[in-house]
Amino acid sequence: MSSQPTRIVVIGGSAAGPKAAAKARRMDEFAEITLVQREQELSMASCGFPYYVGGTFDDRNMLICTPAGNVRDSQFYGKAKGIEALVLTEALRIDRDTKTVTVKHLPTESERTLHYDRLVIATGARPVCPNAPGFDLDGVQTLHSMGDADTLRAIRDTKAVEKAVVVGGGLIGFEVCEALRLAGIDTTVIEKTHQILPFLDPDLAKLVENHIRANGPDIIVGNGVAEFLGDNGKLTGVKLDNGTELPCQLAVVAVGVRPNIDLALLSHLEIGDQGGIRVNERMQTSDPDIYAVGDCVECKSLISGHWMRAPYGDIANLQGRVAGQNIIRENSASFPGITQTGICKIFDFTVGFTGLSAQAAKAAGLNDIETATISGLDIPVFMSGKLLISKLVAERESGRIIGFQCIGPGDVSKRVATMAMAIRGKLTVEDMVNADLPYAPPYSLALDHTIVSAQVMENKLKGLMQGLSVTEVKQRADHGADCFILDTRSPEEFEAMRLGIGETLIPLGALRGRLNELPEDKDREIILYCKISLRGYEGAAILQQHGWRNVKVMEGGIMAWPYAREK
Amino acid sequence: MSSQPTRIVVIGGSAAGPKAAAKARRMDEFAEITLVQREQELSMASCGFPYYVGGTFDDRNMLICTPAGNVRDSQFYGKAKGIEALVLTEALRIDRDTKTVTVKHLPTESERTLHYDRLVIATGARPVCPNAPGFDLDGVQTLHSMGDADTLRAIRDTKAVEKAVVVGGGLIGFEVCEALRLAGIDTTVIEKTHQILPFLDPDLAKLVENHIRANGPDIIVGNGVAEFLGDNGKLTGVKLDNGTELPCQLAVVAVGVRPNIDLALLSHLEIGDQGGIRVNERMQTSDPDIYAVGDCVECKSLISGHWMRAPYGDIANLQGRVAGQNIIRENSASFPGITQTGICKIFDFTVGFTGLSAQAAKAAGLNDIETATISGLDIPVFMSGKLLISKLVAERESGRIIGFQCIGPGDVSKRVATMAMAIRGKLTVEDMVNADLPYAPPYSLALDHTIVSAQVMENKLKGLMQGLSVTEVKQRADHGADCFILDTRSPEEFEAMRLGIGETLIPLGALRGRLNELPEDKDREIILYCKISLRGYEGAAILQQHGWRNVKVMEGGIMAWPYAREK
Repeated sequence: MSSQPTRIVVIGGSAAGPKAAAKARRMDEFAEITLVQREQELSMASCGFPYYVGGTFDDRNMLICTPAGNVRDSQFYGKAKGIEALVLTEALRIDRDTKTVTVKHLPTESERTLHYDRLVIATGARPVCPNAPGFDLDGVQTLHSMGDADTLRAIRDTKAVEKAVVVGGGLIGFEVCEALRLAGIDTTVIEKTHQILPFLDPDLAKLVENHIRANGPDIIVGNGVAEFLGDNGKLTGVKLDNGTELPCQLAVVAVGVRPNIDLALLSHLEIGDQGGIRVNERMQTSDPDIYAVGDCVECKSLISGHWMRAPYGDIANLQGRVAGQNIIRENSASFPGITQTGICKIFDFTVGFTGLSAQAAKAAGLNDIETATISGLDIPVFMSGKLLISKLVAERESGRIIGFQCIGPGDVSKRVATMAMAIRGKLTVEDMVNADLPYAPPYSLALDHTIVSAQVMENKLKGLMQGLSVTEVKQRADHGADCFILDTRSPEEFEAMRLGIGETLIPLGALRGRLNELPEDKDREIILYCKISLRGYEGAAILQQHGWRNVKVMEGGIMAWPYAREK
Repeated sequence: MSSQPTRIVVIGGSAAGPKAAAKARRMDEFAEITLVQREQELSMASCGFPYYVGGTFDDRNMLICTPAGNVRDSQFYGKAKGIEALVLTEALRIDRDTKTVTVKHLPTESERTLHYDRLVIATGARPVCPNAPGFDLDGVQTLHSMGDADTLRAIRDTKAVEKAVVVGGGLIGFEVCEALRLAGIDTTVIEKTHQILPFLDPDLAKLVENHIRANGPDIIVGNGVAEFLGDNGKLTGVKLDNGTELPCQLAVVAVGVRPNIDLALLSHLEIGDQGGIRVNERMQTSDPDIYAVGDCVECKSLISGHWMRAPYGDIANLQGRVAGQNIIRENSASFPGITQTGICKIFDFTVGFTGLSAQAAKAAGLNDIETATISGLDIPVFMSGKLLISKLVAERESGRIIGFQCIGPGDVSKRVATMAMAIRGKLTVEDMVNADLPYAPPYSLALDHTIVSAQVMENKLKGLMQGLSVTEVKQRADHGADCFILDTRSPEEFEAMRLGIGETLIPLGALRGRLNELPEDKDREIILYCKISLRGYEGAAILQQHGWRNVKVMEGGIMAWPYAREK
């Protein structure tokens, strides 16, 4: 401590940057720490913007407060953290030879040179702009900065907009969609690809789509923005690739973000093939005195080993903490990588995922996988349980769990956290079938949804059950395939709700006595289901053992069926 | 399938037994499966009894229904499962030589001999009865059977009772306590030992105690039942060991359960030192044709390797499934053991745990452990976050996580599930500090409570922070120890709420400028805290680096303080 204080400069004051600075301060009371932030605000809860816009809360300060209620402004950083926070200040360039950063105070345009012993780049990401004319019209927005949040909140409060279009059907797109809908705005979400929520497999995404439509907003997939239409500089509508024009006074663009690597490029730091700054486990860039954290870097997938982008607030905070330790005590902390976990509230549904979907696994070259889709309640009927629909992905050979998607009105969050930890622990399906989880009726079924999911997967891996997805069954029905479709529910249930895809009703309890009604050809494909396909599975076991050789269960049952029903 | 069908007898029809029978049926359509149940009901949701008693729901059938609404009676088992269920039938003895079980139909007293190729013992557990006179008085109850649930529910509905005593301060005791309180009954819980909820460490247990008292019920610890007092065969009160008499019309005894091993003893099967039937990973007893599952067996701890009892409904179901597979396909499934995970709703608190508490770890001979207690919100303030208080236990040397307790009005269940999986995956604190969990404001803080808990533990293991428990601080205050106690909150917070244990208030933001107010003696013990002790920790880092050598943080802050406060 008698030596010269370490000089630390952190560029970026939103999430990862402040975390790195604060951790460094706690590790070294005498370091000189400067935080450079382009915006006015510091350490904003950006993920809270949609809830502010939607009116979940009204006090804007809550987005920039500590839990104890202190606004995290420059003064707070100075007093509580001993960190000099330069706001409205842009870092212009890094000189790695002289170890300096040149910054400009935007209001005064005055420049200043900061010396560093260790530099942290936390420049975040920038919203991707669709390549369409009219993007600069008044009324075309993103939701990235506090300023954006203020603008959208003002639109809500003044009731200035009747119709809005959200461009982009990802997490943020639908959070914005819900916020606009809650503000009473007639909202349409458009998505260029053929599926919303790309981290889900299509069957599950379609169920979410149904839920969103049921809450008012419309969704158009397979159609991007061709042009933002305007009049006198003001947005009047959005023209789609197929020529459709959607009149609107507001368009919120949420088609993803791109790492902000301008400074890193200028300084010739290594950039990865995913477009982010390449860092090692210590969060060090190719220059060992320069660290990088948050949305501007690439992370390693703990599942595939591939480099990925993970622009999530929690990852930014984790990385910031690791960098903060290492810039004071070299090699004292590591960030091993990510499993890719995310979650989102969309009206009464929660949509969550961890690890790889089936399509992501295949895209990553993992082809020998098995999936298991189930429906079920989160807690017992007598405790007013709510539905969960999930899809588990595992490697067939090793049984290792590599992905889990879960949606529905039930407690998705807990199940995704549970499976995220299973993936982190490199657990197999065999480990998971006997997991010891907290059970009491207010919180779980006796066998939690995650355990049942693993048990169904185990049944499939052991060859005890053959499954079909709802989509595969729909295709068979649409093409008039020669299969025998069996609904194993009760007549009352059949009367109240049914698919109408040529199915025969034989309640499970009657099945053993009515085997003569089943196909004589023991090789004919038989597809069973019930409400959630538990009785379907039990029925399938009966038929298999009575000699039918091509017996399949429609996974997830009617609850997982996203297509139109007869009733 | 052309051979003789396998004959399977399952003794016990509550949870583990029916599960074993149903799984065996799915594995072998042609086995002859007989389920022997002493009670009238089959496959009851016993864990739901308190919620039926307390009026969360009114339809008794919901306790014995499938999710599709079918009552699980003998007829249902016959038709849907092809299982002969003999209810009101007691298994009298097992003859291992002839491989038979003699059973008696209780209403008719007729006996019958069942032949088995494989036998499953799922005889469950029996409530422990306190060794006190008057146990047979009318008004002394347990909550173990459907009949018990009916009796207590009738008491609620008829408003026949004004005062009740619950004997036993464990999970079931407090579930019953809440149910009785919801029924408008003035309730006192008595606990023989000096602490309620023995799976918690005392500091946390005390916070739960406060919460329960705040909801009405009284709690008396360190005092057992000496006698149930009666008049004309009816309960009039409970006399405690210290002579106190508590007048009441109802006493519910919930002092734990004991494995029901009568049949196993009669058949000379191996019994373990915990008083349960000893089984291997296949759920096989010392007789390879006899399996045992559920509350009557012992399980291996995945943490300590010790044998334990785990009378939980979820474990019973897991074991039943494993036995069901193995009795059809030998050695096809295993039950590796338990981490001991449990949860309970007590008024607005959830109380959960997984693995070992500090006291349980020490009792198991694991002495080189570290703990980390934290308080914090489950989700952000702007989303109306609720408090969680938790204690993490890890091995100091390896960093392996071995236990986690969590309580509070927040979403405890998810955090316990998360940590249960961390323990199952044998994760270390280092793994957990960078966990990739589902983050969005409706579900979590950017750094989830479980991650912060691991980070605080890491700080302690790395020597960056020294902690004291609230109890250790209280003891120092009570004994007038020569320590300097520092509250680092704001004056406004101090005005609204404070401990009053001789503390000095220096807000964190002012601390660097007021170091001259701190003890001159750099070896004097300084104890810092704030509301949750995050600012306390930041303050401690400052003081340590300014040369104070004996700086400690009161873990969990004021939110974890269970004792009386000045304000």
